[in-house]
Amino acid sequence: MRILGIDPGTLHMGYGLIDDVNGVISMVECGVLSLPKTVPLEKRLHRFYVELLDIIGSFHPEEVAVEEPFVALNVRSALAIGRAQAIAILAAAGNNLPIFRYSPTQVKQQVTNYGRSSKAQVETMVKLQLGLSVLPQPSDAADALAIAICHLQQRRLNSLISKIR
Amino acid sequence: MRILGIDPGTLHMGYGLIDDVNGVISMVECGVLSLPKTVPLEKRLHRFYVELLDIIGSFHPEEVAVEEPFVALNVRSALAIGRAQAIAILAAAGNNLPIFRYSPTQVKQQVTNYGRSSKAQVETMVKLQLGLSVLPQPSDAADALAIAICHLQQRRLNSLISKIR
Repeated sequence: MRILGIDPGTLHMGYGLIDDVNGVISMVECGVLSLPKTVPLEKRLHRFYVELLDIIGSFHPEEVAVEEPFVALNVRSALAIGRAQAIAILAAAGNNLPIFRYSPTQVKQQVTNYGRSSKAQVETMVKLQLGLSVLPQPSDAADALAIAICHLQQRRLNSLISKIR
Repeated sequence: MRILGIDPGTLHMGYGLIDDVNGVISMVECGVLSLPKTVPLEKRLHRFYVELLDIIGSFHPEEVAVEEPFVALNVRSALAIGRAQAIAILAAAGNNLPIFRYSPTQVKQQVTNYGRSSKAQVETMVKLQLGLSVLPQPSDAADALAIAICHLQQRRLNSLISKIR
């Protein structure tokens, strides 16, 4: 099972791909799409969309997970995250890939077992769980990997629950 | 000059096409893309995107105008409008069409000459300016036509200003 995690932003869009082979998870690739603020919004959104399609076409994830802000800081950031999220959703939907949305609290809960963990704790757990010697940089890429791991844990949980029932 | 106006929403997306021929404006087409809330967000966004591409492909607008919330009511609606707006921006950008964003106040100002006019006043002016016997229905379609008219007025204003300079 290969999962693509996306940390949506209209200036920086983090992405991270992980594999789950018989319960052993590993990092496939991660990075950040970035464009300066001087590039018009429509060009940034379109470029990110094309690059996400390219990532999906190159790495063939089976499912996509994207961060969903539960309570955004303010209206302006909610508008920006909404725009970036739509691009990610569209890239997945256009490839018939299931897409799942997780709040920051869900990501923290699934990755560190604690919904209020710090950014540093999440990053440490991402590094440990993926067996990496150093933390993926920049932080948007690490965040995207955390979202992918969150989805994988949620899948395992759902699978366990369905077996119990 | 043919303009496509879009009133972005993730459940209802209004669209309106107007023509400006030697200063005489007329309505070409208008309508609303709608999907029930029971359809998952990713399917709604993808369907709206495909339908907007279809509208652009059928009517060949030269420029696109979309509403930009200046102060959205709340974070949840900002997130939704951001998503819907991104779909409209992407459909325009993918066709190399210039896209312009206008706040509700700008739309009111350009269409009725008064930034705080009521919804009914805007609708009446849309009807008058397009020489229609009845108001376009539903209101999302009328709103999209208002956004297209706003862009046309702004273009005329810019053209006048550039001549004065």
